[in-house]
Amino acid sequence: MDNLKELREKIDSIDDVITEKYVERLNICDEIAKIKQADKKAVSDPAREEKILYRVTENVPEELRLYVKDLYFSIFSASKARQNALISKGSPTTDRIKEILGGELKDLPMRAAVACQGVKGANSGAAAVKFFPISDITYFKNFEGVFSAVESGLCEYGVLPIENSTAGSVLEVYDLMKKYDFHIVRSLRLKIEHCLAGVKGASKNTVKKVISHPQALRQCAEYISENKLETEESENTAVAAKRVAESGDANIAVLCSPDCAELYGLKIIERSVQDESNNFTRFICIGKELDVKKGSDKISVMTTLPHKSGSLNGLLTKFSAIGLNLTKIESRPIAGTDFEFMFYFDFDGDVSDPKVLGLISELENSSDKFVFLGTYKEILG
Amino acid sequence: MDNLKELREKIDSIDDVITEKYVERLNICDEIAKIKQADKKAVSDPAREEKILYRVTENVPEELRLYVKDLYFSIFSASKARQNALISKGSPTTDRIKEILGGELKDLPMRAAVACQGVKGANSGAAAVKFFPISDITYFKNFEGVFSAVESGLCEYGVLPIENSTAGSVLEVYDLMKKYDFHIVRSLRLKIEHCLAGVKGASKNTVKKVISHPQALRQCAEYISENKLETEESENTAVAAKRVAESGDANIAVLCSPDCAELYGLKIIERSVQDESNNFTRFICIGKELDVKKGSDKISVMTTLPHKSGSLNGLLTKFSAIGLNLTKIESRPIAGTDFEFMFYFDFDGDVSDPKVLGLISELENSSDKFVFLGTYKEILG
Repeated sequence: MDNLKELREKIDSIDDVITEKYVERLNICDEIAKIKQADKKAVSDPAREEKILYRVTENVPEELRLYVKDLYFSIFSASKARQNALISKGSPTTDRIKEILGGELKDLPMRAAVACQGVKGANSGAAAVKFFPISDITYFKNFEGVFSAVESGLCEYGVLPIENSTAGSVLEVYDLMKKYDFHIVRSLRLKIEHCLAGVKGASKNTVKKVISHPQALRQCAEYISENKLETEESENTAVAAKRVAESGDANIAVLCSPDCAELYGLKIIERSVQDESNNFTRFICIGKELDVKKGSDKISVMTTLPHKSGSLNGLLTKFSAIGLNLTKIESRPIAGTDFEFMFYFDFDGDVSDPKVLGLISELENSSDKFVFLGTYKEILG
Repeated sequence: MDNLKELREKIDSIDDVITEKYVERLNICDEIAKIKQADKKAVSDPAREEKILYRVTENVPEELRLYVKDLYFSIFSASKARQNALISKGSPTTDRIKEILGGELKDLPMRAAVACQGVKGANSGAAAVKFFPISDITYFKNFEGVFSAVESGLCEYGVLPIENSTAGSVLEVYDLMKKYDFHIVRSLRLKIEHCLAGVKGASKNTVKKVISHPQALRQCAEYISENKLETEESENTAVAAKRVAESGDANIAVLCSPDCAELYGLKIIERSVQDESNNFTRFICIGKELDVKKGSDKISVMTTLPHKSGSLNGLLTKFSAIGLNLTKIESRPIAGTDFEFMFYFDFDGDVSDPKVLGLISELENSSDKFVFLGTYKEILG
């Protein structure tokens, strides 16, 4: 048996040939892309791919066929990504992005009319101020009000929580994304602190019941159980704070942010009572129109996938084929179907990169439902 | 410029070389696997991969390097998957699976002691009967009670809802998976029908308020709003049915299954009032020990991923490299971290396939936290 060193030398010389031939292949693909462009033909040609797969596997031993097939899936993905990047065919979204990139990119304004869910003192309000130092905030009863205010033009921007590091994705917001026209223009990672706050005279000894939003109650579950407190759910933490303040009752308290307690004139009985000291919420800032603000390096899209074997793998290969780092996948069922899903992908990427534009136009031109949710940068608050 | 046909012929002859060389490479990898096995060396060798990447890209034009790198990521993944499949190294899970496969595979028994959440009449009870025609059901107040009953041996099996085609994943069940020892042995897709039921004398005219589980209320949201009904949440649909029956009040009604209405002697006022006529819930049946029941063709695993760029892509490539079809990805944040996640993967696969066992042992041996949740078949109810 050859030893390891000799075998590796053999592999090295094989790799020289594979690489040389692969580069040659990519260059020929470029020429084919030009012909396809001139003839206004689609980049994707499933029949040709089938033929190639048949040719390359017919003389390969059965047990190795899957490996060769898989290699060619990668090669096809890469070729299509490259051809799409070369051909300036584009899609409605990429055409618009190129137009925006042709002008001067702006930052978010310092002042804006912003829609938030909740009432004064809610965490969304604190997030809005991180996005726009001077925020004219209008509060809406629910998340749908925020989407609707942005879509109708009532407010220029909207602020929505999208995921929490303890409780997970805010599924209601993901579901509403299917219903409204909007684009993400920035995101924010905000550290969330809950405190126990009550009226004058309230103390850990007098408080028997806490009122707060279900997510806040969940994030403080250990504290609640250790102190044998009853719980009551409210629409949001600020509504709860208001109720406690108006009750004058030292037996009830609220779990809310220190800012919110202060706003409603409550006394902070104990700080940082959430179970985990690291408790973050990610917020998105949405506007109606697609825009590319300065420094945008994250991209979010949503798309349906054909309800057939391999379609999730197929899409994921397209991302990895051009070296894009997926940072999040979320999926939500489409009501009335037998487990078909809307998929949400977040990835690191720059829309001035032709490969990224090529992928976006490929997805937009080939999917039943594809929505470019936006490109943005994330700030820390 | 060459025409399309000539260019394609060039590609065909390039592909002949690439395929021939790739098959040669796979065969050499097999020999290397044997040496690694004899020397008790790990299959994965990141330093060697780095060297190869450097070699193959150094003479490639800058703009094509990413494509060559990506091709080699696929090649490395495939090589490792194959070497892992060949080397009988194994992991605790694959050793146990091989032991089970050595004996005779059994079916689920006809009769079993089963833990369900809720009270008599809950959908979990209906699911239990689909798994075990003769079910001795013990009802627990919450999902945690079901996991705990199975882990402690109090009940042989447990039945849990895992996902609904309208409301999505049951996140509480996913979160509890991190806390308990258990294995999935079967799954079930059950069509869920909600009806409006009340006491004798109740009709659509008398009913002002409906009581039910929050998921059921959500699945009937349109019906509730059209009929201007008030809502009240209950722990589960059966508890709600019991309350309505005991109240004797024609102003309140329950949203529950027809079976459940009958069980509590209620009158069905209207059938199929859920918003979507296609409303399915998937249930899992869990047991304590890992087992491979007859006909198992689905696999579920959960694993953490290193908190670094590309780790999600890297894992997904391992699945596609051996042709496994991912059917679901779920992720849940790990509390107390800055957006680190536990990932849950469902895929179609057969544990008697050496490639599948190779992947499982590779994941188990290389991940901080990897749990093989089980292999099972899904039935329709």
